[in-house]
Amino acid sequence: MKPRILIINPNSSEEMTGAIHRNAAAFAGEDMEVVTVPTPGTSPFIATYEDHAMAAPGMVRLLRENEAGFDAFIIACHGDPNIDLMKEITVKPVVGIAEASMKMATMLGHSFSVIAPVERTVPNKKALVDKYGLSRDMASVRPAIIEQGADEAERLIAAGRRAVEEDMAEVLVLGCAGFAGLDKRMEKELGVPVLDGVICALIIASGLVKYGVSISKKRRYDNTFGKR
Amino acid sequence: MKPRILIINPNSSEEMTGAIHRNAAAFAGEDMEVVTVPTPGTSPFIATYEDHAMAAPGMVRLLRENEAGFDAFIIACHGDPNIDLMKEITVKPVVGIAEASMKMATMLGHSFSVIAPVERTVPNKKALVDKYGLSRDMASVRPAIIEQGADEAERLIAAGRRAVEEDMAEVLVLGCAGFAGLDKRMEKELGVPVLDGVICALIIASGLVKYGVSISKKRRYDNTFGKR
Amino acid sequence: MKPRILIINPNSSEEMTGAIHRNAAAFAGEDMEVVTVPTPGTSPFIATYEDHAMAAPGMVRLLRENEAGFDAFIIACHGDPNIDLMKEITVKPVVGIAEASMKMATMLGHSFSVIAPVERTVPNKKALVDKYGLSRDMASVRPAIIEQGADEAERLIAAGRRAVEEDMAEVLVLGCAGFAGLDKRMEKELGVPVLDGVICALIIASGLVKYGVSISKKRRYDNTFGKR
Amino acid sequence: MKPRILIINPNSSEEMTGAIHRNAAAFAGEDMEVVTVPTPGTSPFIATYEDHAMAAPGMVRLLRENEAGFDAFIIACHGDPNIDLMKEITVKPVVGIAEASMKMATMLGHSFSVIAPVERTVPNKKALVDKYGLSRDMASVRPAIIEQGADEAERLIAAGRRAVEEDMAEVLVLGCAGFAGLDKRMEKELGVPVLDGVICALIIASGLVKYGVSISKKRRYDNTFGKR
Amino acid sequence: MKPRILIINPNSSEEMTGAIHRNAAAFAGEDMEVVTVPTPGTSPFIATYEDHAMAAPGMVRLLRENEAGFDAFIIACHGDPNIDLMKEITVKPVVGIAEASMKMATMLGHSFSVIAPVERTVPNKKALVDKYGLSRDMASVRPAIIEQGADEAERLIAAGRRAVEEDMAEVLVLGCAGFAGLDKRMEKELGVPVLDGVICALIIASGLVKYGVSISKKRRYDNTFGKR
Amino acid sequence: MKPRILIINPNSSEEMTGAIHRNAAAFAGEDMEVVTVPTPGTSPFIATYEDHAMAAPGMVRLLRENEAGFDAFIIACHGDPNIDLMKEITVKPVVGIAEASMKMATMLGHSFSVIAPVERTVPNKKALVDKYGLSRDMASVRPAIIEQGADEAERLIAAGRRAVEEDMAEVLVLGCAGFAGLDKRMEKELGVPVLDGVICALIIASGLVKYGVSISKKRRYDNTFGKR
Repeated sequence: MKPRILIINPNSSEEMTGAIHRNAAAFAGEDMEVVTVPTPGTSPFIATYEDHAMAAPGMVRLLRENEAGFDAFIIACHGDPNIDLMKEITVKPVVGIAEASMKMATMLGHSFSVIAPVERTVPNKKALVDKYGLSRDMASVRPAIIEQGADEAERLIAAGRRAVEEDMAEVLVLGCAGFAGLDKRMEKELGVPVLDGVICALIIASGLVKYGVSISKKRRYDNTFGKR
Repeated sequence: MKPRILIINPNSSEEMTGAIHRNAAAFAGEDMEVVTVPTPGTSPFIATYEDHAMAAPGMVRLLRENEAGFDAFIIACHGDPNIDLMKEITVKPVVGIAEASMKMATMLGHSFSVIAPVERTVPNKKALVDKYGLSRDMASVRPAIIEQGADEAERLIAAGRRAVEEDMAEVLVLGCAGFAGLDKRMEKELGVPVLDGVICALIIASGLVKYGVSISKKRRYDNTFGKR
Repeated sequence: MKPRILIINPNSSEEMTGAIHRNAAAFAGEDMEVVTVPTPGTSPFIATYEDHAMAAPGMVRLLRENEAGFDAFIIACHGDPNIDLMKEITVKPVVGIAEASMKMATMLGHSFSVIAPVERTVPNKKALVDKYGLSRDMASVRPAIIEQGADEAERLIAAGRRAVEEDMAEVLVLGCAGFAGLDKRMEKELGVPVLDGVICALIIASGLVKYGVSISKKRRYDNTFGKR
Repeated sequence: MKPRILIINPNSSEEMTGAIHRNAAAFAGEDMEVVTVPTPGTSPFIATYEDHAMAAPGMVRLLRENEAGFDAFIIACHGDPNIDLMKEITVKPVVGIAEASMKMATMLGHSFSVIAPVERTVPNKKALVDKYGLSRDMASVRPAIIEQGADEAERLIAAGRRAVEEDMAEVLVLGCAGFAGLDKRMEKELGVPVLDGVICALIIASGLVKYGVSISKKRRYDNTFGKR
Repeated sequence: MKPRILIINPNSSEEMTGAIHRNAAAFAGEDMEVVTVPTPGTSPFIATYEDHAMAAPGMVRLLRENEAGFDAFIIACHGDPNIDLMKEITVKPVVGIAEASMKMATMLGHSFSVIAPVERTVPNKKALVDKYGLSRDMASVRPAIIEQGADEAERLIAAGRRAVEEDMAEVLVLGCAGFAGLDKRMEKELGVPVLDGVICALIIASGLVKYGVSISKKRRYDNTFGKR
Repeated sequence: MKPRILIINPNSSEEMTGAIHRNAAAFAGEDMEVVTVPTPGTSPFIATYEDHAMAAPGMVRLLRENEAGFDAFIIACHGDPNIDLMKEITVKPVVGIAEASMKMATMLGHSFSVIAPVERTVPNKKALVDKYGLSRDMASVRPAIIEQGADEAERLIAAGRRAVEEDMAEVLVLGCAGFAGLDKRMEKELGVPVLDGVICALIIASGLVKYGVSISKKRRYDNTFGKR
């Protein structure tokens, strides 16, 4: 029986949802069933804390409506918006793409860098790294480098090169679900592993489903509190 | 000109709002103008991450509607729900009662303990302590000790006594806005400073207003991102 | 094409190798091909640093002889003996069961405890937790509790219960590959997720193979150094 | 009743004492009574550990002679010289300007930089940041940048600009009591909050007085030890 | 040529000075020349921060008067009073007995405990452990256990036993220069290494002299600042 | 009675063994007896984890064969290869040159830098710094700077200069036993203490012998486990 996994894109962009889905489905192949949905009533791009908060009601609704029909849930934004909330409200596995990709990165080299879309979110991502206790393993967070005439891949490669050469990163993590599909091109160019968060989350989520293990309901993520 | 401070109680309990207000107003005296409001459409008691998320829309609305009329804002729940969001959306000072009281506690003794309402929220509070980088200064988080026939103050005192004697805490922090008014009784009983979060937040918030300093709008809490 | 994974048991016990294999094979099912081998010329039980060192030559030989024939390698001892060496000498993924299970545990709850076979190895395991930067996420390392007439499962359950109740652990990690097969019984008894290291490593290893990602060969684990 | 606060300038410079006082008095306004005194028999500028030690006897004398007449005490040197001593010997609140300003800075943005007078004291200030457990929140310590023809404000602004742009600081802290009065000019120039330590300390100290809370006399700062 | 080492006992007790000296001289034997002096004008027992500060002028005088005549200096109080000051004012090696013994302890086992004279100083000693960045290596600070009829050695042994059995300490550090001569008796009783600070400091100090290495005069401990 | 110390060079280079020995013997003088041996069957230069592992059997044999004849053992490679193993298998003191030199460096200035032979080993050395809990004290790890026509000393000096000026290092540590004899030349050139690991280890090892203290055999390094 294949794990059925719902990928929740916390933004409302159909285009980004499509890109995420194609990438996820290609990885899933015959091993898992993957459905990807945008979150209605949210911003088309998640960057600010307000975007996070605005996405919560839609994400909760999506999770609750689909709880019975799926085995695990992935939050497909590299800010891991509302991840504690999602882990709390269901007894099924929930995986954030930042958490999965950054923790997996620590298994593959001495230190990792996150490539962020824009400088504005660099401290927010560092705060997320701190939340997961990964500061020691982080080489840097580098925003994509804007160059005249460069396409997105080239901008990420330019940032990744500095991370590898100047910050001594040995592994790179794509800091946005919207970078779907650029990992292998970057890897080829830069000679270090480049991790896509959604794929890392699919590995963890499908594994947990197969193993029959989920979020602990003891204390922190107990969802029966005040309801018993 | 007195600082005008809006205390946002993220839950919907009129009773707790009243208790918080009486305590805040007594401290404010003639030095500040304080208004305390519950958040409509939220849970009567904030404990879970879902309670936090559900409170966000109401809290945003309250902050936006009152932005012009007040000089600073206090989030009066010791989980500091949606604190990054609140700091982001306004150019005026926003102070969380957990952040204010725990950071102030570090100035008064070697280590502090937080007295939590129930065991369920202990790890959540520890995660908050981590978020603020205060783990080294924390002696423990201790839930109120339920004893037959004991009133709330006695339960907190029993927990505080263990924190001071067994965990070596030198300062105590009340881990719930609803404990308003119990600080001085505990202090007298236990012989160590006991901090109420709302009062600590009033000190910081009114001070920032007087000083004319607010949340940095450079990067992490920039609220113009994607809007310029 | 199924991932072919070699599980290297760093000790020489055929019996433990068999137990590990049965457990791994049951999890692998049709999704991966799993082969489990003991390491010739090593101790029947790995506990000391000398046991680690004595296992290195055999582990290197096993990895080199099987490098072409397998897609990934798992080190099946919860001390992760020689893990940096293994990551260095091959371009294929290598996963230690302690690293995989402890990092996966951090995704499932506030804090985890490791259940160790004996008190002697508690500091060694804490040193390993430090190596992976996981001290903040660790509730405790608890040795199995020896009780008259108790079988192994009961001893682990007794230790796990203390970890959950006294140390506030929300997730448990089996601290020995030889505990294979006891996870689900403990989980049922204790009501928190209990992770077997080999299964966690299979999840990570098979995922990396599928994803086409491996250990970074930039600097720390570069295996061409001094050979070019 | 207004809090009466004694600002102890640990150096002997009448000029710097005057500058500190004017700044403090302007902030205090009608809300507090502020007296500022130099410390007799000390160096005119506090930089070295010897300057700290030489200031201790005079600071103790000032504190003891004025203990009855004031409600709280501020140590107005950004090295927080003898701060543990001062907290120990009195039952009234004592606030160091480095501790107050750096802890307040952590409430206003992702990370702060301290602007130091000279490079010589940079490691000393980093050691102080470590003492307060704030390394994670610190972007950098930057010495004023000496430029031909630049006045003090311009030198601090030049240093602050690098802190904000290169070190990603979101808040700046003036690393010397002698920089009194330059905060608002820097803030205007650089667009981030700039904190003066004396004013931050006044906020905390007057707040503690109003709240009726002081240094814990349990263990670390117990001043009855060996005297009972 | 034998290293000539001055042991500065920061208190004024002739008796404790004698005990420290006998112990030091027995260790020094023919390899070093050791002189031990009390500090005039100080408290007979150093416990509080005030005791530290009061000792500074005398310690500075002793160091300056003897700078030419000795090769290295040891501060013989386990609070390392005024250690930064001492390191700053001379170009010759200065070693604190807490720093030397605790750092040496980390080379001998997984974690160490400090046995403190009284509970009052436990947080002060923890703050010192933090100052040296050794919290990870510290199992606990345990005060001597007062038992009816027990002599000092028995009280230390009782505390040490709990540190070893309950806190998992593998090495013990005597937390007071006045415990001189009790190390070997404790070691025999408890079966773990027990370190006397003065002896550890003699090892480091005489080694530095022989090696011709001293405190760095670059920045933090530069003693020419403001004097050139 | 002079301490008899065996210096184990984990590589097989007779030339490097000779250089280490000459340097050690010059320091030892009449105070200790020093014998230096290469490790048969190992790589001529230790850089990779494989080099570490390959050296283990020879190092164990050397230690066991010489256990009775020597009082202490030094591992003379700045990667501290197999140091836990060595500490475990003997009841006599074992000192790693990286551990000794880096911990001694922390006593001499605010922060230290390690000068590494090549960039490849920089992350490995950072991992070692982490293992010893010294990250806070480390300014940087800098590889020797390759310049046309520069000899080894000049390359190390160039790297050291950047460490002191750009990374704010106040003490330097030679990151390779093969740099024997360059410390004093660098010190003269750069004006900061420069530590040779073997000499630092001789200081610690001979001191422990004289003191009669050794590795704790309680738990982590217990060598009787499974043998009683």
